Amino acid sequence: MRLSDLGEFGLIDRIRKQVKGLSAGVVGIGDDAAVVPLSSGKYLLLTTDMLVEGVHFTLAMPARGIGHKAIASSVSDIAAMGGVPKYAVVSLAVPPSLPCPVVSQMYQGMIMAARKFGVEIVGGDTVKGQKVIINVALTGEVKKNEVVYRHGARAGDRIFVTGPLGRSLKSGRHLRFVPRVLESQYLVKRHKPTAMIDISDGLVADLGHILAESRVGAVIEGRAVPRRREASLKEALYDGEDFELLFTLSPSKAKGLEKHNKSPFRVYRIGEIVSEGEGLQMRTTGGLKRLKIKGYTHF
Amino acid sequence: MRLSDLGEFGLIDRIRKQVKGLSAGVVGIGDDAAVVPLSSGKYLLLTTDMLVEGVHFTLAMPARGIGHKAIASSVSDIAAMGGVPKYAVVSLAVPPSLPCPVVSQMYQGMIMAARKFGVEIVGGDTVKGQKVIINVALTGEVKKNEVVYRHGARAGDRIFVTGPLGRSLKSGRHLRFVPRVLESQYLVKRHKPTAMIDISDGLVADLGHILAESRVGAVIEGRAVPRRREASLKEALYDGEDFELLFTLSPSKAKGLEKHNKSPFRVYRIGEIVSEGEGLQMRTTGGLKRLKIKGYTHF
Repeated sequence: MRLSDLGEFGLIDRIRKQVKGLSAGVVGIGDDAAVVPLSSGKYLLLTTDMLVEGVHFTLAMPARGIGHKAIASSVSDIAAMGGVPKYAVVSLAVPPSLPCPVVSQMYQGMIMAARKFGVEIVGGDTVKGQKVIINVALTGEVKKNEVVYRHGARAGDRIFVTGPLGRSLKSGRHLRFVPRVLESQYLVKRHKPTAMIDISDGLVADLGHILAESRVGAVIEGRAVPRRREASLKEALYDGEDFELLFTLSPSKAKGLEKHNKSPFRVYRIGEIVSEGEGLQMRTTGGLKRLKIKGYTHF
Repeated sequence: MRLSDLGEFGLIDRIRKQVKGLSAGVVGIGDDAAVVPLSSGKYLLLTTDMLVEGVHFTLAMPARGIGHKAIASSVSDIAAMGGVPKYAVVSLAVPPSLPCPVVSQMYQGMIMAARKFGVEIVGGDTVKGQKVIINVALTGEVKKNEVVYRHGARAGDRIFVTGPLGRSLKSGRHLRFVPRVLESQYLVKRHKPTAMIDISDGLVADLGHILAESRVGAVIEGRAVPRRREASLKEALYDGEDFELLFTLSPSKAKGLEKHNKSPFRVYRIGEIVSEGEGLQMRTTGGLKRLKIKGYTHF
């Protein structure tokens, strides 16, 4: 069997089983970031993200934007856990024939994003490669009573996203997006999301992760899914790399968030968590329709 | 200008200057691992290492060995700072056509190495790539009074290594070496090395890093450099990937280590730190000879 037969999530599942048992007392592979003990009141968060030339970006894109994305997408993982980002180490593979300004501009993009989002780049590794590969490993911190996982959604919870979705890759937004750290901090301090994830694989795929980890189903209101300019519903559902937060709130917390409408940013309620047996469905003018859980996968 | 003109250390130097000023109170790019605050008595260590197919390994090598090396070389970076390894996150790029057992065996090698050296693999990222790329980011902990940098060597200090050098790549040893965590712990608790590094670029290149950071020179005794079986002096001086510790001790600490010979492992004294102006020299039967600081570089 080849990896292309197994699929990306099949591979991740295999690795999880292989690694399992090794990690006592640690929330391991499966969330946006790993959660390990730090102090009596805090967890340390750890995330790693690899960007590959020709898969996640091309050298025709602005190099600063590529650098921005490398840092911002890791920051988004920390935000998805309810944490604040701290220290990054950057590994970079580069072909020797690459013009120096390209590397400088990539770093410039990383440095500017790091400053903007409160990250310190504290180390790295540079190696030769046939293609440009950027790996950012980032630590974060989260108060123990503010950490949010994918596995806490319950039937009856309302489902929200922090912004319009779709066409992030086509519009170039994926090279300049702002990860939702402030929004995440606001939510975990006031509204206690039951589950949270950042939308990187696409709304349906990432909601699928929450449903699988929480062992629940969901009904999405097709009309309520916010779309970026020119994005179709299909693009809003399946495009990746939006980096908005997708989270669930208990009915009472949801009412609190919506009623007073005190939140300094807009949130969009897109549906409701239901029991596992009902799977993932979308309500349209034509009634309820079952959605296949698929999104951007690498294999 | 292209990266091949700038060279690897030229690139690292550039990146350092670009990142500098960003990291207040942090020992940043330049040591084997970054050192950041953790608690009143401890620092958090952070290191990242990228292994690229066709550069650091080939798929003709045993996949378990590749996995072993990925974890063990990061563990070696933590040991070089006087720390103990803790949590790893692994990014993996793989071509979809790769047979599944290759990935399983690589992970098996990582998991076995992690167990052996006290590391927990707590998360990761898997992506598509044209070549196999493994990035391991590893945290460690070190007591504040036990951390060792590259910059502390002083004229008069003795220079030691923890084992014979050379032919690690040719002999396959680089796929099964044991990083010197226990030796490092013994040294930092009893003998306070003034500077330490692990030999990954080659003895001369890595001693060069200590000399540059400490602003000193060194005289190596050619006859005293321990060699692996069949290794020439040249191979012991310039081959990379030995992953032995190279460290310096004050004359009195050196005497203590050598006299009582209580160390549970063998150490080899190979020379002495001198003033910066004298550069790096090697004593042979023919007298003193200046050594060019070069080693394995990626560009």
